[in-house]
Amino acid sequence: MIFASDNWAGAHPAITRRLSDEAAGFSVPYGASELDHVVEKKFNELFEREVAVFFVATGTAANSLALAAVNRPGGVSFCHREAHMIEDECGAPEFFTHGARLAPVDGENGKIDPQSLKSEIYRFPPGFIHAGQPMAISITQATEIGTLYHPDEILAISEIAKNNGLPLHMDGARFANALVALNLSPAEMTWKRGVDIVSFGATKNGCWCAEALVFMHPEMAADLPFIRKRAAQLFSKTRFIASQFDAYLNDNLWLDMARHANNMGQRLQNGIITSKNARLAWRAEANEVFCIVDKELEDQLRQKGAVFYAWNPPRSKPGLLGENEILLRLVTSFATEEDEVDRFIDLLG
Amino acid sequence: MIFASDNWAGAHPAITRRLSDEAAGFSVPYGASELDHVVEKKFNELFEREVAVFFVATGTAANSLALAAVNRPGGVSFCHREAHMIEDECGAPEFFTHGARLAPVDGENGKIDPQSLKSEIYRFPPGFIHAGQPMAISITQATEIGTLYHPDEILAISEIAKNNGLPLHMDGARFANALVALNLSPAEMTWKRGVDIVSFGATKNGCWCAEALVFMHPEMAADLPFIRKRAAQLFSKTRFIASQFDAYLNDNLWLDMARHANNMGQRLQNGIITSKNARLAWRAEANEVFCIVDKELEDQLRQKGAVFYAWNPPRSKPGLLGENEILLRLVTSFATEEDEVDRFIDLLG
Amino acid sequence: MIFASDNWAGAHPAITRRLSDEAAGFSVPYGASELDHVVEKKFNELFEREVAVFFVATGTAANSLALAAVNRPGGVSFCHREAHMIEDECGAPEFFTHGARLAPVDGENGKIDPQSLKSEIYRFPPGFIHAGQPMAISITQATEIGTLYHPDEILAISEIAKNNGLPLHMDGARFANALVALNLSPAEMTWKRGVDIVSFGATKNGCWCAEALVFMHPEMAADLPFIRKRAAQLFSKTRFIASQFDAYLNDNLWLDMARHANNMGQRLQNGIITSKNARLAWRAEANEVFCIVDKELEDQLRQKGAVFYAWNPPRSKPGLLGENEILLRLVTSFATEEDEVDRFIDLLG
Amino acid sequence: MIFASDNWAGAHPAITRRLSDEAAGFSVPYGASELDHVVEKKFNELFEREVAVFFVATGTAANSLALAAVNRPGGVSFCHREAHMIEDECGAPEFFTHGARLAPVDGENGKIDPQSLKSEIYRFPPGFIHAGQPMAISITQATEIGTLYHPDEILAISEIAKNNGLPLHMDGARFANALVALNLSPAEMTWKRGVDIVSFGATKNGCWCAEALVFMHPEMAADLPFIRKRAAQLFSKTRFIASQFDAYLNDNLWLDMARHANNMGQRLQNGIITSKNARLAWRAEANEVFCIVDKELEDQLRQKGAVFYAWNPPRSKPGLLGENEILLRLVTSFATEEDEVDRFIDLLG
Repeated sequence: MIFASDNWAGAHPAITRRLSDEAAGFSVPYGASELDHVVEKKFNELFEREVAVFFVATGTAANSLALAAVNRPGGVSFCHREAHMIEDECGAPEFFTHGARLAPVDGENGKIDPQSLKSEIYRFPPGFIHAGQPMAISITQATEIGTLYHPDEILAISEIAKNNGLPLHMDGARFANALVALNLSPAEMTWKRGVDIVSFGATKNGCWCAEALVFMHPEMAADLPFIRKRAAQLFSKTRFIASQFDAYLNDNLWLDMARHANNMGQRLQNGIITSKNARLAWRAEANEVFCIVDKELEDQLRQKGAVFYAWNPPRSKPGLLGENEILLRLVTSFATEEDEVDRFIDLLG
Repeated sequence: MIFASDNWAGAHPAITRRLSDEAAGFSVPYGASELDHVVEKKFNELFEREVAVFFVATGTAANSLALAAVNRPGGVSFCHREAHMIEDECGAPEFFTHGARLAPVDGENGKIDPQSLKSEIYRFPPGFIHAGQPMAISITQATEIGTLYHPDEILAISEIAKNNGLPLHMDGARFANALVALNLSPAEMTWKRGVDIVSFGATKNGCWCAEALVFMHPEMAADLPFIRKRAAQLFSKTRFIASQFDAYLNDNLWLDMARHANNMGQRLQNGIITSKNARLAWRAEANEVFCIVDKELEDQLRQKGAVFYAWNPPRSKPGLLGENEILLRLVTSFATEEDEVDRFIDLLG
Repeated sequence: MIFASDNWAGAHPAITRRLSDEAAGFSVPYGASELDHVVEKKFNELFEREVAVFFVATGTAANSLALAAVNRPGGVSFCHREAHMIEDECGAPEFFTHGARLAPVDGENGKIDPQSLKSEIYRFPPGFIHAGQPMAISITQATEIGTLYHPDEILAISEIAKNNGLPLHMDGARFANALVALNLSPAEMTWKRGVDIVSFGATKNGCWCAEALVFMHPEMAADLPFIRKRAAQLFSKTRFIASQFDAYLNDNLWLDMARHANNMGQRLQNGIITSKNARLAWRAEANEVFCIVDKELEDQLRQKGAVFYAWNPPRSKPGLLGENEILLRLVTSFATEEDEVDRFIDLLG
Repeated sequence: MIFASDNWAGAHPAITRRLSDEAAGFSVPYGASELDHVVEKKFNELFEREVAVFFVATGTAANSLALAAVNRPGGVSFCHREAHMIEDECGAPEFFTHGARLAPVDGENGKIDPQSLKSEIYRFPPGFIHAGQPMAISITQATEIGTLYHPDEILAISEIAKNNGLPLHMDGARFANALVALNLSPAEMTWKRGVDIVSFGATKNGCWCAEALVFMHPEMAADLPFIRKRAAQLFSKTRFIASQFDAYLNDNLWLDMARHANNMGQRLQNGIITSKNARLAWRAEANEVFCIVDKELEDQLRQKGAVFYAWNPPRSKPGLLGENEILLRLVTSFATEEDEVDRFIDLLG
């Protein structure tokens, strides 16, 4: 009953098999091999346009390099107050951008509120050097709390971005989970709604280590080869990432894995809704489910072998927890089995 | 006939097999899994002391984080004028250290000259704020030009380090190659001669992606968990590195692979020595061999399928090349076959 | 009728006279002259303890260097959401700290709310590397909106600081104004209430350019000489700052100037309170007064020669302005004359 | 007998007088006052073209901001191995540029050797990400060792700069001294020979604190307002710098002061040439004179009240000093008196 995070899972057999197939033979390193180019083309097809793709080591690297690519002196980037970039990356975005600021924007359900976003950007009149200058907006899809930006919501944010001349970045650590939940194509969920840069995560969805930074407008990434190398994020044997992506994108494996994870999430959610002892914190839309239990039940769950994290309630929901209550985050993955979910629901009672 | 670099090779089958074995099942991420701890213990045994080990994405990351761990305001680190850190990492050490300087030190044969090192350090009187302050010395083993620091040479550098209160770092991108060439134990080549921090590279020697930063004095790495995470170098599914190291260090696989690479290097060198058309630039001690040919021969070699890089002559050897001559770097690896070497030597004539 | 900012004023004649007196003769540069030491001693007397004093070019430099001195990898510093550091320094604190974060804390009246501060710090469990690590708390005295931290309020913040092992910094761009308003001694307003570091501003209060960074515990500033030099904030002819401070602190000139500025602020405030056309936004406690007028009146005031800034309403007061209303900031200084104030009040009507 | 540095002098009376005149009255801060604009126009006249001028706190700031303005990811800037930027700024250029590298170039007489410069740049083939990318060349005029780049020498460097698409920066901490020694106009010594950016120092030549960064092509400085503010180098009461420059540039005061300093330098040099006990290290061309004495004489000079620094011999002159000999640097300024020089020469014997 491992619901701690989708990165507790290992790798899908098709991924490791494909990786092993690449072990023999020689190949040009540093992203210049044939396979690297094959996979880059797959990304073009996937996004239905010519994109620039950069493999990196971690999702944190992808997010941070995205901002580094578009940074300006005194740069300020707007993201949700509880975005992964702010809360879980130990200041990597600031490090990679030499100290650009992540300006927190409030919003319900883990999503940036467009009005709040406008108000925050308004505090930076063009040319007012004391404040610094806006340089990007970033949204997380799926969000940190398992919700989704629906197509019109992405559009609302991207219009603000366009009006202010700002690129829009999407942290897609759980890109696939969002995609299948919304039943959109990659193009529909990104550039067709104004997204310019995507952190395309695959590690959480069945790879060992496969993160790609994707620019919808390759000219935006002109400096990135230097920036990435300088950040020690240019692998030598890039085949070991390219081959994972090759298998990942083959035959819709990635969508199948994400769909399974989401289904397991829904199964969990349904169980929680019918539970007498737990209540749903808010409606999950992908593979992260948040529920509220009392601390005794939390202890029992742990003792019976369930693994999960207690989570900080969002600042926008100050009265969420009753006394003695705790918020649990439950994450499912490609490797979650129905049986595990059902056992957990039984334990909830 | 791929002699371009040892990172053109793929991975040893035992490495990929071990990695595949880990794919199933769940595991604590971010370096806290059982396997992570098992491998950490292996490093303790390897170095015959309790060390602190950090897996990172690239050799550049290991080097850069080593300096970041010991940096001081206005920090200056001393390394050979043609060290990898200076010439091939796109400023990553400066980026990771927020702008510490790499002070180039001259020396023959790719090695720091102790007298030059003393002279350079002498330019930084303690407390003289205008100059900045020394913070580390770094040597590369094997060096960028295929030579080795012999035990007494390491000692000579480390004595200067100690006298100036500076930690000594070893860039061990080709640690194993140096080790077997010198017939030393890891302890003998490092802390027993005063080395404090090692970039322990395995990628070039048969892994997919396996680089470890090893601190002989764990307290020196107190801040490194934060520094590494902030640099986006903390993998989530660390099993994928730990398992590679597990196989690498098992049954002396790593030493066997390095020995093979070195033997292939010697075979190449012997062929060059007897060649009528090529001459050895200097004596190779590990798996990198440098030879001088004229440009016509270079062209012919390439046309016949040999792959290698032309190399900048060291600044210390201004008259190395005659007119129309070129310096070639030839690197062998665990995957180099005798037959390839022999064919190349035949081509040399 | 210049109420734009206290830095629109020039310098007090006693300041320029003292500076001119220093012009002849030679003197050790870089902070090592006799006069530098004399002034440093004056700071010891002022704060009733041995402090470490560093002259710098701007208040922004003082604030940023304060944080740089106590920074840690992944460092996070807590300050009010509308602190000068966040809103008006173009990211200098992030630049000087290599990307430490300023975590915004909410609070009424321009002051950090202790409960909110605790909640924000709570999000950083010790050793939880993903979040980064707290490294300082900073308060502004007087605040950006002309209010003051009263002694017990400073104490409430510093207790949280101590409980979390964090140094407490005071941005004292208007230190003197706060001091005379509260009728406290420098020691009482700082270390006796737990303040560890002070940006001691004098430029806004009658100097040309005189900013000092003062550490109550000199050992906290051990690295600062290097950090300051590296930030290009070490003047060569430091006499030109030391002599300003010498005159500033002589015969209570600094307190007299601040008292005058505050009195002019009170006079303005009283006028606003009795005005039919303007209303006070909140009660001013030092030399910054905020009032609300309609936009027609704003235009008239400007046309009649009044100079001031329109100000963003604090986020904590969303309903502050009625339709067609605007918030004005009015700042008085040592050079403000009664007559100017009275003319402005007449204009208000 | 103060020959330690030209920054041991105070300020010229005309400078302090002009500054005092500005003390009364109100003025727009942050570089937007009328006087700021008046002085900016003077710089246009001085350089015979429209330039962009930025006042900053120190020469180190000017140099560092110059590089920050033109930096690129992985940026490398070429300067003489013993340039002030490398040896005396505690890593400020690296700090301001977020870790760009200063690549040391060898050359006799404190000047970059064009051949060496070409060789160093040659190591950075365009697009070769491992090496980083060149971003600027910087020369010091007058050099650190009192020599000068003559017009054709500036041209030789700037041609290399142009051929490689690199901006050329001139560190003019002693700009005026070089100018009068070469009998050139500012335009002739800079953009007419291909110099793009000048650190225009006045502090060492009779001001309190007056350093300007001057861009010959204002578009090159598009981001500088943000970069400067972020570096805490934007003064509020900019009048205090502008007024110094106003007096400095008035009636050729600056050239008169520099000419006097140079004359005193020549007088010193002549004395050394005729001395029995000292010998000239190399020929001085401006206001810094280097001579060699034995250590007994050094002691005597100090005991008799002469103040100077012992200096590290240039690396290019390894046999400069005999046993027991020491190299002295003697710097004259606008405030040096003939009598002092003569007394020192007498002491030399």
